[in-house]
Amino acid sequence: MNTRNIRKICILVFIRFFFLTYLLPAKNGEEPTIQFLLEVVEILTNYVRKTFDRSTKVLDFHHPHQLLEGMEGFNLELSDQPESLEQILVDCRDTLKFTYEIAPVFVLMEQLTLKKMREIIGWTNGDGDGLFSPGGAISNMYSVMVARYKYFPEVKTKGMSAAPRLVLFTSEHSHYSIKKAGAVLGFGKENVILLKTDERGRVIPADLEAKIIDAKQKGYVPLFVNATAGTTVYGAFDPINDIADICEKYNLWLHVDGAWGGGLLMSRKHRHKLSGIERANSVTWNPHKMMGVPLQCSAILVREKGILQGCNSMCAGYLFQPDKQYDVTYDTGDKAIQCGRHVDIFKFWLMWKAKGTIGFEQHIDRCLELSEYLYNKIKNREGYEMVFEGQPQHTNVCFWYIPPSLRVMPHGDKRREKLHMVAPKIKAMMMECGTTMVGYQPQGDKVNFFRMVVSNHAVTKSDIDFLIDEIERLGHDL
Amino acid sequence: MNTRNIRKICILVFIRFFFLTYLLPAKNGEEPTIQFLLEVVEILTNYVRKTFDRSTKVLDFHHPHQLLEGMEGFNLELSDQPESLEQILVDCRDTLKFTYEIAPVFVLMEQLTLKKMREIIGWTNGDGDGLFSPGGAISNMYSVMVARYKYFPEVKTKGMSAAPRLVLFTSEHSHYSIKKAGAVLGFGKENVILLKTDERGRVIPADLEAKIIDAKQKGYVPLFVNATAGTTVYGAFDPINDIADICEKYNLWLHVDGAWGGGLLMSRKHRHKLSGIERANSVTWNPHKMMGVPLQCSAILVREKGILQGCNSMCAGYLFQPDKQYDVTYDTGDKAIQCGRHVDIFKFWLMWKAKGTIGFEQHIDRCLELSEYLYNKIKNREGYEMVFEGQPQHTNVCFWYIPPSLRVMPHGDKRREKLHMVAPKIKAMMMECGTTMVGYQPQGDKVNFFRMVVSNHAVTKSDIDFLIDEIERLGHDL
Repeated sequence: MNTRNIRKICILVFIRFFFLTYLLPAKNGEEPTIQFLLEVVEILTNYVRKTFDRSTKVLDFHHPHQLLEGMEGFNLELSDQPESLEQILVDCRDTLKFTYEIAPVFVLMEQLTLKKMREIIGWTNGDGDGLFSPGGAISNMYSVMVARYKYFPEVKTKGMSAAPRLVLFTSEHSHYSIKKAGAVLGFGKENVILLKTDERGRVIPADLEAKIIDAKQKGYVPLFVNATAGTTVYGAFDPINDIADICEKYNLWLHVDGAWGGGLLMSRKHRHKLSGIERANSVTWNPHKMMGVPLQCSAILVREKGILQGCNSMCAGYLFQPDKQYDVTYDTGDKAIQCGRHVDIFKFWLMWKAKGTIGFEQHIDRCLELSEYLYNKIKNREGYEMVFEGQPQHTNVCFWYIPPSLRVMPHGDKRREKLHMVAPKIKAMMMECGTTMVGYQPQGDKVNFFRMVVSNHAVTKSDIDFLIDEIERLGHDL
Repeated sequence: MNTRNIRKICILVFIRFFFLTYLLPAKNGEEPTIQFLLEVVEILTNYVRKTFDRSTKVLDFHHPHQLLEGMEGFNLELSDQPESLEQILVDCRDTLKFTYEIAPVFVLMEQLTLKKMREIIGWTNGDGDGLFSPGGAISNMYSVMVARYKYFPEVKTKGMSAAPRLVLFTSEHSHYSIKKAGAVLGFGKENVILLKTDERGRVIPADLEAKIIDAKQKGYVPLFVNATAGTTVYGAFDPINDIADICEKYNLWLHVDGAWGGGLLMSRKHRHKLSGIERANSVTWNPHKMMGVPLQCSAILVREKGILQGCNSMCAGYLFQPDKQYDVTYDTGDKAIQCGRHVDIFKFWLMWKAKGTIGFEQHIDRCLELSEYLYNKIKNREGYEMVFEGQPQHTNVCFWYIPPSLRVMPHGDKRREKLHMVAPKIKAMMMECGTTMVGYQPQGDKVNFFRMVVSNHAVTKSDIDFLIDEIERLGHDL
């Protein structure tokens, strides 16, 4: 094949080596400034050299409040507009200057960024609590732990036998991590009750209420409801307001799993899809998904302040000494189920500095625009069938490619069986020739279909055109 | 003060930016080859450039078994001797060539490295199971989950109410994450029973047996014993063989928390301190601690194959498609409580390549030698008092500095109160002037003492001398 025709479409990139590439403000299709990267490298190599120069200090101590007040011109605040690349280099240098014990500069970045995220969710004054965790599954697990602690705090000390038989609710289209949390935390996965969804994968609120009533009648105690903002496969947004009404009525914890869809909060055009999220008790939001931050960067955000600490603190005196000379409320380690934590905040904070809030909005709007472009191109095209009717809510475009040989076949088991094999075959061919890579999966009674997701704003319409051509080229003779 | 006298001693560095610095074979005190770093950067920038060149492939597909067989000269195996820096550059290039969906090259590196670690533990043929997790606390949590699944598999489905009242045992000197796991997983932290230790912080086996018998008499079911290999504060190694005897007698799961001390397994001179570890059912071992790998890099290793999968799998069809064209036993995601995982293996694997097994041994031996040097210098020195008698087992040297004003005070509450303030004051002064940083904490009824830990083999004896001088200079007039 002609390699000049080969295009790159990066879809749900799991591993990204070079986060700095993604720091640059969105300029579609433009090659990143390698020069900028090299300047960052120079800052780093100078720092490495310095650590071997014994005449320099181990640390340059400043109290956290001094850092917050912008000492030596270091401004931690995030703003709407992007900063210049020169300023980003200054930020890198400043950050290196202020890293020391338990890394307060990163703790402060975390606090500021989490507060900003809570403001964007719509919680009053951005108040509340939060943490960066090693991924959405762990963030969702935190939400269940905190809900349990809120309603049955004695479980922390006495175990699950101190609580009645608790049940959790989540949709059949939700991420499996809610079920996993049920298994891990000792609820049992059969006590995670799956809710029915409509044809587009959104929870049916009436089914939630019916199942709450049913559980109560059977002697179970409903505790927690997960609403998904952006399901993994269909990209569906559960109707949060309707679910919140039910949670208030029955006094249940409402969690919104916005691991995938949370990023849409950054877009004035699309954030209405998460309408009602400000009523949630907790939210999972993964900047490492839709916002293009490299793995791992997931936030668990909680509306009630102090509850993470209450839930998880073990008061390990050898780690968290109250007699330090600085304000120890910045020692946040005991809120986490981890002890040491990887610094996930820096890349996100720096990216926010570089893109500005406005840059994330453009990123999100662009990705959704590209998905709409794909959807519009294939919805009435010969050989394509959409998995569900209507414009997708998120960037997930779910479709079957029907090779000519199947177009003439009557609907029925035989056609289903054949269609089930099409996406895996095309994907295998894509991988063998290295042109592109699109994921597929079955869902419920639906046979394997492609799920095309755009989370990289550098994708172009011509990439989408190429993808369609490539599917047809590879699948035509199946 | 004279900055030319300022020395750097990096103790328990929580955040390390520049992992490549640590890749270099141990050559004490030598400045790292900046040239080497720049060559790595060039490989990376070329890769970045390439991703923007549309004539290149998205991926260069090879089956996992082809990679294992060393195709195109890429050798994944780890060996005793270090590789040359030139070869490390080749390894970096090869790795970049082979990254694609769910990153099989990293999965293979994980499998090979975990097997090597299991061999070093002493499990037959290195058989068993394992994962890299986001830290020792999570690895320890895995061990409790797997133990519960082994003895009460129905808890996964039905919750803790399907099991009797279970209890876990761990020493009062062990890491608080065992207690935290008890709270998180629904056992309750009061069902984590703390064992007495001897004056050096090692579990007293007779106390374990007495508490097992006591728990059984009270109607509880003992499930799990944690033995610590390298406690956080004293660096103590619990007597694993004695504990294993008791676990066998009562049919309990034996976990060894070697987060801190596991690294000593690499040393022929020091591994006897973990004697009996091959009898454990599971082991936590954090290369990001004693072995100098940057955060995060923690392994949970399990002797029984397949049990992690059994414990944690949720069989999410949309993620783990059995109809892929490659061997899907390499899709290991469903073993974890996470969904996506950060790639923690690459830096460790590459470091192993660069140092060789022999390099880790030298690193460990060197750190312990330096601690011994410190211990010998201060054990009989005026103004110092050791927290426990005798040569420390690990690199933890725990001591009080007694300022002249306290040396003449009679022992009693007043002296205790004053002594309790000494370490915090000296540490605050250290931080203010930026010369060095040593941690302190109280332990049980012992007032604040310094805990000096060496995990960086680039520390020199003159650094240790400087540290002692500095403590005396800062603390003399207290």
